[in-house]
Amino acid sequence: MTFELTILGSSSAVPTSKRNLTAHVLNVHERFFLIDCGEGTQLQLRKNNIRFGKIDHIFISHLHGDHIFGLFGLISTFNLLNRKNDLHIYAYQEIEKILESHIAYFERNMSYKLVYHFFNPKKNELVFENDNLTVHTIPLKHKVPTCGFLFREKGHLRNLRKNVVETYQIPIKQIQSVKEGNDFINDDGELIPNERLTLPPYKTRSYAYCTDTAYSEKIVPIIENVDLLFHEATLAKNLQKQAKQTTHSTSIDAATIAKKANVKKLIIGHFSARYKDVSVLLQQAQEIFPNTVAAEDGEKYSIELSR
Amino acid sequence: MTFELTILGSSSAVPTSKRNLTAHVLNVHERFFLIDCGEGTQLQLRKNNIRFGKIDHIFISHLHGDHIFGLFGLISTFNLLNRKNDLHIYAYQEIEKILESHIAYFERNMSYKLVYHFFNPKKNELVFENDNLTVHTIPLKHKVPTCGFLFREKGHLRNLRKNVVETYQIPIKQIQSVKEGNDFINDDGELIPNERLTLPPYKTRSYAYCTDTAYSEKIVPIIENVDLLFHEATLAKNLQKQAKQTTHSTSIDAATIAKKANVKKLIIGHFSARYKDVSVLLQQAQEIFPNTVAAEDGEKYSIELSR
Repeated sequence: MTFELTILGSSSAVPTSKRNLTAHVLNVHERFFLIDCGEGTQLQLRKNNIRFGKIDHIFISHLHGDHIFGLFGLISTFNLLNRKNDLHIYAYQEIEKILESHIAYFERNMSYKLVYHFFNPKKNELVFENDNLTVHTIPLKHKVPTCGFLFREKGHLRNLRKNVVETYQIPIKQIQSVKEGNDFINDDGELIPNERLTLPPYKTRSYAYCTDTAYSEKIVPIIENVDLLFHEATLAKNLQKQAKQTTHSTSIDAATIAKKANVKKLIIGHFSARYKDVSVLLQQAQEIFPNTVAAEDGEKYSIELSR
Repeated sequence: MTFELTILGSSSAVPTSKRNLTAHVLNVHERFFLIDCGEGTQLQLRKNNIRFGKIDHIFISHLHGDHIFGLFGLISTFNLLNRKNDLHIYAYQEIEKILESHIAYFERNMSYKLVYHFFNPKKNELVFENDNLTVHTIPLKHKVPTCGFLFREKGHLRNLRKNVVETYQIPIKQIQSVKEGNDFINDDGELIPNERLTLPPYKTRSYAYCTDTAYSEKIVPIIENVDLLFHEATLAKNLQKQAKQTTHSTSIDAATIAKKANVKKLIIGHFSARYKDVSVLLQQAQEIFPNTVAAEDGEKYSIELSR
């Protein structure tokens, strides 16, 4: 059961020869969730061997060009490939006007439907749910309405210990109940305590995506204890003032949030094109939050199952 | 004096992991002319070390997404980089509406001006001229108004032979006249014939860009004898019928045009994503026109000076 993030682009608004525009893909149990869609995302998806047909949900943090200009080409390619499945888009409401006027001019006959799910950028709300995942918005602090996204696995069931079904003759009908933590009473009326039958469940895994944003402590309770936090660090600490003016974060801001939220691991990214080498930003962040890494295009971060 | 083409993208409408969307750059004496601008063009420019500041002119063949979706990001990046020079766009008139509505939403404060130059898609007309280059449109046959572009160096002057200025005491004022082919009369009234003073001029170099288009013999007189022809070959010859229906060309169409127009070299490209390996298309073209190559992203084709 995979829970794996792939970084498709790690630059801020101006791309470089090594960093593409912002897009992430989260693989949750082999369903692929696309987060933001900067120019070139479809090309990055191809290069990272992510099949277009596995993407049904796209989450858009905000309507700045560097986070959405890849949507036009992706929508067009899906159409040329004769996609049939609905494509769900989670974003601020103005996106509909932008995409629909594009489609009206460039696409005409769409082979599939776009389904819009608008979020209130001021609220922390549930925007997506399936059997094994929920996605909540994270209100961020940027020049335009912006939300991050918190992806959290739903609770796993307890796991059966080896051979218990045969040993205790548990009927198939009752397996679900045992996995849910209940004891088992056999045909002789004997009670087998659940601990003898099961192992504790796997922990639920979580990923929080926070960009673009100025430093905002309001997000701390929402992202507390997540396994993996992506937080933008557009600038180094000497440009704190500029970061505030442009409603972006520094390496220090990102690491401080990670520390306060007690996350397990921090990825910084959305780097300004001025940094040919981002090791300065990484060092600054690591001084505050040691388990920090710097995003690189094409890199994968897998969270393994653990009890 | 450079005359060099760089292929930035060689796919047709659906890109692949190895082929980006359509864009070419022609370097004429260190001015860079961008031709079409598919998604990801700004990233390809970066990867090919082409400085944004050297691009003042963009030629757009037609208004299909795979040829223009890179404009949004490029215009935005130029703005973020605080470009001051005008950016000239040569295209069918509807482009203005498309770009201006984008700019109104995404850019607001533009640091530079877009200057539009509209062409009549049915005419072969001069759309650009400077001291050493002319650009004419080439009416093509596609579903929407489409033109290719013919880039032709202006005639070079004759070149002075070694040391003639000193030997014959030619005053600086008269050098231009000698380079233009006139004889020189010295202070003693002696006539020095031009052949003794100069070498023949370099030949003018030319590049014709023809995509997207169905087979059209009407373009032959316009592109006759060019040094380099790019002609689309979206499909192989067994898909001739489909090519006609979609107003695209086969490898055979491209090579036949190259042969009829007596061009020096043919590049085929705009390949359908169905071809992992384009050697079949290349072989088919070479059977008709041997000096054919298949476009690859990042490849450069330089035309050297010759007399």
